[in-house]
Amino acid sequence: MLKEVKRVLIIGSGTMGEQIALQILKNNYTVYLYDNSKDNLFTCKSKIEQNTTLEQSEKLFITENLTEISDKVDLVIETVTENLKVKKELFRKLNTLFPKEVIFVTNTSDLLPSWMAKDSGREEYFCAYHFHAPMYGADIVDIMPHSKTSIDTIKSLKIFTKRIKLIPLVLKKENPGYIYNTILNSIMDSSIKLVIKGVAEIEDVDRAWMGNTGMKIGPFGMLDLIGIDTAMNVSIIKAKKNILSYIGAAFFKKFVKNGKLGIKTGEGFYKYPNPKYQDENFLRDAKSYLKN
Amino acid sequence: MLKEVKRVLIIGSGTMGEQIALQILKNNYTVYLYDNSKDNLFTCKSKIEQNTTLEQSEKLFITENLTEISDKVDLVIETVTENLKVKKELFRKLNTLFPKEVIFVTNTSDLLPSWMAKDSGREEYFCAYHFHAPMYGADIVDIMPHSKTSIDTIKSLKIFTKRIKLIPLVLKKENPGYIYNTILNSIMDSSIKLVIKGVAEIEDVDRAWMGNTGMKIGPFGMLDLIGIDTAMNVSIIKAKKNILSYIGAAFFKKFVKNGKLGIKTGEGFYKYPNPKYQDENFLRDAKSYLKN
Repeated sequence: MLKEVKRVLIIGSGTMGEQIALQILKNNYTVYLYDNSKDNLFTCKSKIEQNTTLEQSEKLFITENLTEISDKVDLVIETVTENLKVKKELFRKLNTLFPKEVIFVTNTSDLLPSWMAKDSGREEYFCAYHFHAPMYGADIVDIMPHSKTSIDTIKSLKIFTKRIKLIPLVLKKENPGYIYNTILNSIMDSSIKLVIKGVAEIEDVDRAWMGNTGMKIGPFGMLDLIGIDTAMNVSIIKAKKNILSYIGAAFFKKFVKNGKLGIKTGEGFYKYPNPKYQDENFLRDAKSYLKN
Repeated sequence: MLKEVKRVLIIGSGTMGEQIALQILKNNYTVYLYDNSKDNLFTCKSKIEQNTTLEQSEKLFITENLTEISDKVDLVIETVTENLKVKKELFRKLNTLFPKEVIFVTNTSDLLPSWMAKDSGREEYFCAYHFHAPMYGADIVDIMPHSKTSIDTIKSLKIFTKRIKLIPLVLKKENPGYIYNTILNSIMDSSIKLVIKGVAEIEDVDRAWMGNTGMKIGPFGMLDLIGIDTAMNVSIIKAKKNILSYIGAAFFKKFVKNGKLGIKTGEGFYKYPNPKYQDENFLRDAKSYLKN
C-alpha cells in the first residue's frame, strides 16, 4: 500500500541531520529530531530556529527518548556516523521500537543498503535516501533501493522528495557512491594523479577545471569543503575494494598528518577564509606561469 | 632571445583552425591560413568573415603555397588531423621551408610534443599549444613543453596568449590529455561504467551531474558535442596505453555503428536540435522515475 509520508524522524543532529530537518520544516512538515547527546540536540535546534519561521519551527520536536514517538512517524531517516556496525546496531534497535510499516532509510554516502536491510527488520520498507551536502547547491536526492525494496516504498519517497522541493533520482540498483559521488571520486583520483606525476600544480588543476567548466570551484577546492580527512577515509575504503587506487589515500594522508583538513581547520589545499580560488584574478594568475 | 609573435600561420582550416584564426584576428593580429584543399580554405574564409569586422578580416590571408609566406610569420600553429604520422611528415616539410627561429606548435589533443619535436628540426622552438573547442566557453590554452622546449619559447607563447585574450596554462611536463581532458576522460569513463553496470540511465547520469554542479550539460551531452566517433578513437588509443579501460571504446562503438555520432549527425545520446537536456524540466523529469 502506498504510504503518504507526513511526519519524519531524523536520527542524528550533525550537519546532515540539521540540513535535512531544515529542508523538511521549510516545506511545512513535522520533524522529530533524535540524538543521544542533549547538547547536540539543543545546538542543532537553535541553529534550525535561526533559519525557519516561528510557524515552521513549532513543528520541530527534539527528543532523547525514541519510545515516546514510536507511533508518531511514517519515515525514519538515519544520519549517524559512517560506520556500518553502528548503523546496523541502530537499525536493529529501531526495529524493536517502530511499527513494521514505518519506512526506514539511511543517508549513507558510501555503504550499501543491502548491508543493513535485514537489520531494519523491514527489507521492503528500507533503502538508501541520500541528501547531498548543500555546499554545491545540489537539489538532488538519491533514492537507492536494494533488491528487496518495494516499489511502493520508492514511490512514497519520490512523492515526499518532490513535496520538500528536491529532485528525486532513483537508481536502478545499488552502487557505492550513487551517481554523482562515483563521478566525483574519479575526478579526484585523476586530479591527484596529475599532481603526483608532477604535470601540474594543485592550483593549476583547479584553474583548468574552472576555466573549462565555468564552475566557481575546482577539484581541490571541493576537497577542502568535503574535508581532507573524510576524503582520505573514503579513499581508503574504495582502495580496499579496488574502486580507486591507493595513491589518493597516501596523498591525503600527508595533509591530514599536518592538521590540514580543509575549511574546518582553516587550511587544506587553500587557506581560509578567502581561499585564493575565489580571487577575481585566480584564473589569470596561474601558479606555473614563468615570471615575465 | 625572446621572440614577439606578430604574424601567425595556421595549418589546417577545420573547426579548430577556424576558431583559432578567429580569436587571433579579433585581437588585430595578422593570420595566414593554409590548407591543401582550396574549397576548405574558401569555406573557412567566408565563415571567418561573417564573424569579424572588415578591418579584422583584411588581416586574413589564405594560401595553398607555403613557400610564398615562409619569411612572413613568427609562429606556425598546426591543426591538422589527429594522426602522428601525418603530423610528423608535415613538420619535416615545414622545417625545410621556414627559418630555424620560427616557433612551431601542435594543437594536438592526445599526442605528445616529444613525439614530433625532432621532425620540427627546432626542438627548443617546439611544444604543444592546445586550444579547447569553444563549446564549453573555455578561455584556457594549454602550453605543454617537451623536455627540450626553451623557456623563451614558453614565454613568447604566454605573452601572445594573453594578448589574444586567453589564459595560458603552462604544464610542468608532458601528459597525454593535458589537465582538463585527463579529468574529463575519467568522468566519461566512470559515467559509462554506471550505465554499463545498469546503475543508471544515460539521462540520469547527466541529471545527477547537472543537478549537483549547476552545469548546463552533463557527461553524455558533452560526448555528443565532442562526437562519439572521436570519443571512441580517443578511448581506443588510451585503452592501448592502459590509461582508460576498453569498456568505453566498446560502448561508443555501438552508437558509431548505427551512425549516431552526436550533434553532427543529428543524433547521439540525445536527438538534435533541442536535445532533451536543454528542456526546462529536464532535471525534474528523471527517466528512471516510476510513473506516479
